[in-house]
Amino acid sequence: MTVLVLTCEEDVTADLVVAELGALGVPLVRFDPADLPGRVALCAEYARGDFRGHLSVDGRLVGTAGVRGVWVRRPGTPAARAPGASAWLTAEAGQALYGMLSSTAARWMNHPAAAERARIKPWQLRVAHGSGFAVPPTVVTTFPRAAEQFAARHRRVVVKTLSGPPREEPGLLVPTALVGPDADFAAVAAAPTLLQRYVPRRADVRLTAVGGRLFAARKRSAPGQVDGRYGDSGHGWEPVAVPERIAGAVRAYTATARLAYGAFDFAEDEDGVWWFLECNQGGQFGFVELETGLPLARTVASWLAGLDSA
Amino acid sequence: MTVLVLTCEEDVTADLVVAELGALGVPLVRFDPADLPGRVALCAEYARGDFRGHLSVDGRLVGTAGVRGVWVRRPGTPAARAPGASAWLTAEAGQALYGMLSSTAARWMNHPAAAERARIKPWQLRVAHGSGFAVPPTVVTTFPRAAEQFAARHRRVVVKTLSGPPREEPGLLVPTALVGPDADFAAVAAAPTLLQRYVPRRADVRLTAVGGRLFAARKRSAPGQVDGRYGDSGHGWEPVAVPERIAGAVRAYTATARLAYGAFDFAEDEDGVWWFLECNQGGQFGFVELETGLPLARTVASWLAGLDSA
Repeated sequence: MTVLVLTCEEDVTADLVVAELGALGVPLVRFDPADLPGRVALCAEYARGDFRGHLSVDGRLVGTAGVRGVWVRRPGTPAARAPGASAWLTAEAGQALYGMLSSTAARWMNHPAAAERARIKPWQLRVAHGSGFAVPPTVVTTFPRAAEQFAARHRRVVVKTLSGPPREEPGLLVPTALVGPDADFAAVAAAPTLLQRYVPRRADVRLTAVGGRLFAARKRSAPGQVDGRYGDSGHGWEPVAVPERIAGAVRAYTATARLAYGAFDFAEDEDGVWWFLECNQGGQFGFVELETGLPLARTVASWLAGLDSA
Repeated sequence: MTVLVLTCEEDVTADLVVAELGALGVPLVRFDPADLPGRVALCAEYARGDFRGHLSVDGRLVGTAGVRGVWVRRPGTPAARAPGASAWLTAEAGQALYGMLSSTAARWMNHPAAAERARIKPWQLRVAHGSGFAVPPTVVTTFPRAAEQFAARHRRVVVKTLSGPPREEPGLLVPTALVGPDADFAAVAAAPTLLQRYVPRRADVRLTAVGGRLFAARKRSAPGQVDGRYGDSGHGWEPVAVPERIAGAVRAYTATARLAYGAFDFAEDEDGVWWFLECNQGGQFGFVELETGLPLARTVASWLAGLDSA
């Protein structure tokens, strides 16, 4: 029974889980696909219906037959640090590694195919609707006139990115921002723009789903705060019970999306309604655990080791 | 009832299908995601469980409610030709477009999530095994010693790419090549290498699966020919019946892989056995249709328009 942790070198969240796996006595191998080939080597043989694979990390061999769980935490681009790195080598190394791991009986947190689909925000909105969440009305458009009409209809709207901050400008923050109905929407023609009805919030809620277990934390908002991720509200994260209706919706969502892990963000309005904002399949949980003491790292470790139903 | 054809400008295979859709009287919109935003504009609104979207191509409006089929033929990178093109704009435009199209009830040939997974060659080998195909023993490795042992065990092996020719060197051919057991395998450490037992062939077989319909074509090989894709065997493609066992395996494969379209390549050995080499979910079919007269374009067009079961 071995757990594979695919991540880059500096990753505090991974460190927490690695420590818990150690405490549970679960063997683990942590590596970055960027080091394949190089520090990481592999061999997978497919013959007569059988499959046998092994992986070597810094000279330590692991048979894939014993791999119980694969945690795709924050892996680097395959072969990025290999001698002779190229886009082609990345494609070849990615095929070899993920193809080999997909041939095992291991459980994934999360499987790359599920993760890829789950990143698409308009798809999230549809699945969230279908799962029973309250979702603020949203438009994605390149028509300035459609953006203008949406803003006029809903009075107060926010603008967000679809795909997150630009990767080519690390460190650039793109917080959600309020837009008034009198704004100039001409620039909408230059890039698809997501506008969403503004939800005046009394708190942010982060719900972390790990396998079948749900952990929610709540942070009171500062008056008029628009984006709970930035700025200091003067309040901290505190554990909060998960309403039954929300628990059902989360389970429906993760089942449809085939996610073993999901970090759900909600805005809690003045009536106590939790509005679905997004589900980040690779969301951090270190800050929640550190502030609230919720046992997230231990739960992730147990799930990866297959000890969750024991 | 409209069919969307996502492809770049020069695409003879798409031209064939577009002509058939025209002959069937099916409205179609052909565009390249590279032109979003720009010649292509979109709007998708998500409100109270409802979804309404429309797309504009060269000023022509199409409502997504009427889209019956989406053909992901050979689309360009989203926003690649947009003013202010950037990796971020590509991410935003891709989310907006594929998110909107995933929110419709349209059938896909093929859905991007299924296509992405189906490209992984080691995964193909496992699914092919499980579907009942004969698959030549294969190894994927970065260990020179493992490659050497595999070659010694099977005497005659071929080396292939995992991911296809390098995209950064357009036009470079990487044909499958014979490797003797005395070869120097040291370079295997520099890149994951796929070796496969050589199948001496008397013919190449291309089987095209379109929805539930299967079309096979066969081309006799030149003596000693290793890669049917390159070089002139002196023979042409001819239609051939699909053996019952192969038909069952193809249906199992496309069901597992969730593919509406797949181009299967087989090597037919001296005993008449069809050995699975690969399934290209985006494989060309124009050359098969032109040489054999098999009605591939018409079948693709009918499937996309939902006329296949009529």
